[in-house]
Amino acid sequence: MKKLEDYVVSILDYPQEGIIFRDVTSILEDAEGLHLAIDSLIEEVKDLDFDIIIGPESRGFIFGMPVAYELNKAFVPVRKKGKLPCETASISYELEYGTAELEIHTRSIKPGDRVVIIDDLMATGGTMDAIVQLVEGPGAEVVSIVCLMELMGLKGRKRFEGYDVRSVIKYPGK
Amino acid sequence: MKKLEDYVVSILDYPQEGIIFRDVTSILEDAEGLHLAIDSLIEEVKDLDFDIIIGPESRGFIFGMPVAYELNKAFVPVRKKGKLPCETASISYELEYGTAELEIHTRSIKPGDRVVIIDDLMATGGTMDAIVQLVEGPGAEVVSIVCLMELMGLKGRKRFEGYDVRSVIKYPGK
Repeated sequence: MKKLEDYVVSILDYPQEGIIFRDVTSILEDAEGLHLAIDSLIEEVKDLDFDIIIGPESRGFIFGMPVAYELNKAFVPVRKKGKLPCETASISYELEYGTAELEIHTRSIKPGDRVVIIDDLMATGGTMDAIVQLVEGPGAEVVSIVCLMELMGLKGRKRFEGYDVRSVIKYPGK
Repeated sequence: MKKLEDYVVSILDYPQEGIIFRDVTSILEDAEGLHLAIDSLIEEVKDLDFDIIIGPESRGFIFGMPVAYELNKAFVPVRKKGKLPCETASISYELEYGTAELEIHTRSIKPGDRVVIIDDLMATGGTMDAIVQLVEGPGAEVVSIVCLMELMGLKGRKRFEGYDVRSVIKYPGK
């Protein structure tokens, strides 16, 4: 039987030399791969006590929404600056070159909300760290941080000591 | 019982004067609204004969993926230029100001594939028109074009005579 890893196309030296890019679209373009990916994420979170799935633009939308639908949870998107129409909270964070800014609707997160963050990939964890701060700002609780894939060599999960961090596919390298 | 329309927050004069912006995130942040939205889309397409759901970045990801999961279809993303790692086909199209470019992985669509395109909103139909061309280029067949919301006053569906065009919420205005 085909495993989830078998659906991932890996691209050497993309987007730059020394990087192995893991392409999740190759999972999705096969109906069985897609089902396996979402079922694997559901398996990770189905026994957790939470109300809201947070999905960052835009691959977090891809993996967060089917899980929210299947488990009857709400879905709150985290988007790049300027994409959300109502009042937002925002956070700036450092990228390798320059900075980026993420936003969330302030009405969408309340003190005491229990949230699970779902994204496609945990690399250095920089973006995820910003999302955690954005969600905790108004007093919500991050019940779990769940990624489909994790690049263990980048040690992103070291940023999240004390948090529940999960991933389905663990690549040893970077 | 609350209808799907009741979950949509409408914002006057956003992003510019005279426009009523329909905010879909307000549907998603309520677990019942989210479920109703996805169930409505599933209802539109479940009896159609197709293999692949096409979802444009990034709100097409939100609505296309849960439907693909639920109906055991493949999902192929259409993305903005430079986001897809493998060989792509691309199309440029006119926006109100300037041009935009969309891409799809060439390996993802084959002659004879039967696809349904799912997005959040049909407005003037310009972006959807580009997506249809991108999918038909290699010889796939567009079985249906399905949007959660449609602004009937903009007459976007006039571009798609001979196609099956569906929407769940029809707003009379612009």
